[in-house]
Amino acid sequence: MIVLTIEEILKEVLNEIKPSKEDMEKLQLKANEIIDKIWEIVRENSYPILEVLLVGSSARNTNLKDDYDIDIFVLFDKSVSEDELEEIGLKIGTEAIKRLNGSYNINYASHPYVNGEVDGYEVDIVPCYKIDFGEKIISAVDRTPLHHKFLISRLNERLCDEVRLLKAFLKSLGLYGSDVKTKGFSGYLCELLILHYGSFINLLKEAQNWRIGKKIILKDIFEIYKDVDINKLKKFDEPFIVYDPVDLNRNVASPLSKDNFCRFIFYSRQFLKNPSIEFFKDYAKKLEEILENREHGYRLILKIPRENVVDDIIYPQMEKLQKSINKVIVKNEFVILNSKCFADDNYCYLYWEFLVYELPKIALREGPPVFEKERAERFLKKYGKVFIRDCKLFAYTEREYSHIIDLFKDIVNGNLQNISIPKYVNPRNGKIIELNSHGEHKQFNKECQ
Amino acid sequence: MIVLTIEEILKEVLNEIKPSKEDMEKLQLKANEIIDKIWEIVRENSYPILEVLLVGSSARNTNLKDDYDIDIFVLFDKSVSEDELEEIGLKIGTEAIKRLNGSYNINYASHPYVNGEVDGYEVDIVPCYKIDFGEKIISAVDRTPLHHKFLISRLNERLCDEVRLLKAFLKSLGLYGSDVKTKGFSGYLCELLILHYGSFINLLKEAQNWRIGKKIILKDIFEIYKDVDINKLKKFDEPFIVYDPVDLNRNVASPLSKDNFCRFIFYSRQFLKNPSIEFFKDYAKKLEEILENREHGYRLILKIPRENVVDDIIYPQMEKLQKSINKVIVKNEFVILNSKCFADDNYCYLYWEFLVYELPKIALREGPPVFEKERAERFLKKYGKVFIRDCKLFAYTEREYSHIIDLFKDIVNGNLQNISIPKYVNPRNGKIIELNSHGEHKQFNKECQ
Repeated sequence: MIVLTIEEILKEVLNEIKPSKEDMEKLQLKANEIIDKIWEIVRENSYPILEVLLVGSSARNTNLKDDYDIDIFVLFDKSVSEDELEEIGLKIGTEAIKRLNGSYNINYASHPYVNGEVDGYEVDIVPCYKIDFGEKIISAVDRTPLHHKFLISRLNERLCDEVRLLKAFLKSLGLYGSDVKTKGFSGYLCELLILHYGSFINLLKEAQNWRIGKKIILKDIFEIYKDVDINKLKKFDEPFIVYDPVDLNRNVASPLSKDNFCRFIFYSRQFLKNPSIEFFKDYAKKLEEILENREHGYRLILKIPRENVVDDIIYPQMEKLQKSINKVIVKNEFVILNSKCFADDNYCYLYWEFLVYELPKIALREGPPVFEKERAERFLKKYGKVFIRDCKLFAYTEREYSHIIDLFKDIVNGNLQNISIPKYVNPRNGKIIELNSHGEHKQFNKECQ
Repeated sequence: MIVLTIEEILKEVLNEIKPSKEDMEKLQLKANEIIDKIWEIVRENSYPILEVLLVGSSARNTNLKDDYDIDIFVLFDKSVSEDELEEIGLKIGTEAIKRLNGSYNINYASHPYVNGEVDGYEVDIVPCYKIDFGEKIISAVDRTPLHHKFLISRLNERLCDEVRLLKAFLKSLGLYGSDVKTKGFSGYLCELLILHYGSFINLLKEAQNWRIGKKIILKDIFEIYKDVDINKLKKFDEPFIVYDPVDLNRNVASPLSKDNFCRFIFYSRQFLKNPSIEFFKDYAKKLEEILENREHGYRLILKIPRENVVDDIIYPQMEKLQKSINKVIVKNEFVILNSKCFADDNYCYLYWEFLVYELPKIALREGPPVFEKERAERFLKKYGKVFIRDCKLFAYTEREYSHIIDLFKDIVNGNLQNISIPKYVNPRNGKIIELNSHGEHKQFNKECQ
């Protein structure tokens, strides 16, 4: 076996993940073509457009091989009304794609925008207001051109490759993406981190010692905002805080979950200790396979038909429902080994693994110390049959649910009041599926992260 | 239903528990006869005896109806050697009982003494040294005559009846007796408590508010020892401290267990709240029957042939063994609902009730937070397959014992190293018995308290 140095590993990785020069040139040509078309339409109609800007990772040369999205922002003057901006924005977008023989949809972020396909490239044409550093934004997308301008003047060829390495590392670990499903690192966050630490390896070295509440303030911030006072910066109660140089009231790392922050720390350490190209090759999936290749407890899935809403809505609701059900499970003294949820196009899957599925009818309740007169009296009144152990009152009672499936049946039947039911994930439409040790639903485990 | 006042209840109880005048007179006559016989022998042999004293509850008129023991102490001068005391003590005891046509055994406390039966009375004849208040004792039994002298001059007819009520209350609750099996209140402790609080009801009222570490210093102590300094009294780390007026370095309540102390507090409150004669009629047994009349978890007994040693030795050893086994059980993640032990003439019984008897092969181990580098590294090395949850490392491992009975088999086979095995209770001689829900061994539960 040939043992590679970290440098050799990173070189090999970069070779695999970096788009070719030709592909990037082609993309650039196509982007220019679209931008030209947009200006053509703007001129024809005398639309109040100040700028047309190619943004995103492909524009900044920090994209991975499989990411050739063309993101074009059409910048309006602030004097234009929001209705007008929307209307003209859509007109420009649809017309440009039509003229290039592409196809398109209307999507919605803070306002509608055009998402289309032109010659195999995915193209977004997004209208927004032109804002300067320090100015208040009008709609959330107004920040994007500023992000782009901030980065493009600071990233060089080497840094761009370092960003790519970081993205590939995170992607392999299942930590890349700021959507509600992934709760990981956004592309912009990757770019800021590389800018701050200078290189991928340097970032990993520093990350090893991070703690919950780690704060990063880029030195560029002090250049942009002359009299910024560190002590007066907005406080965030989040595991990782990276101040957005474009808007100091925004934490770029806000979507990152605590556990994903911890995973990044842990695997940074592991990679530096035992550098291997494996860390860049679906590492999380392989880990999961290793973890699931084991004896299991009793497993159960609640399968609920999916309503026609996006992941951004369905995932938080699934998690909320599962959390609420978990509380009831724990209250009924069943021990959860693992719980997670997952949605495909048609169904939501809430998954549990239990230590045991059946408990005896008898349950033990721990009461107050005998010394606390009133509480002891109330406990005695409630349970009747008490006894004393370790100076506390105890009582035997009958358990409400002996088998975990009876509890789930009551959830599905709507007989349980203590469960908060989200709008789009209603367990009353659910079906309970028991998994056998090496059964039909094994595939589920790999997907349901 | 006629509701009785507390006074009426206590009167009725006293009626039932107090020995008749005739019985007490007969006992007194028999005791005098034995004492006369002892003096006769002493005179015949010119033994160096200073005093012959009838002691114990029957001598002080604080005995219950079923307790007609005659305890006679033969007091020697301190100049006599211990060997001589033993020898002469036994001679006097055996000779006296012989002359009265009784039968006897030699028993051992701090030194040998005669335990016999004369005309249906159980008689103890115990040699000891005559000691004065404040003097250092030579053997443990030397205190007894002083206890007697202390009490006899302070107890009157009314107080004696109050002592009897307390004893009957404690007996019914299973709290009477300072032996290692009962871990309750000794007769002497009952007498001191009544002396201190003036009446049974007064004691109960005060007991309601007791806390762990409650200290009682009888006012008489300040009369006997002129310059006693409360702050310089010996400190005891025990739940209940009652300084012995005869020896301030001794806690009379030392044998009382924490839970029995708590039980006394709790049932004092219950009796005062709902006074009933039931509290004096095998209350603990009835409570236990009510408690055991329920659904059970999985129950198991370890039955070990009893070695020929007394309760005072076997009980602490059974408890020690059970404690040690419980640690192993908990470590293996089985949940104990109840555990207790009991010995009859032939066997020791260690009893357990479990929440579940079988767990899946898979076990979950919680590791350190990811932030603790060294510990995290060690955990990873140990378990290999780790994952991150709540910022901590976790690992799935295989459970050593899936069924609780396999664990017990290894205990009986001696395959478990972590169990400390006491001298006289060796689980390797044991047999594992599983109990079914309403099975043959149900009787056991009533006895095994």
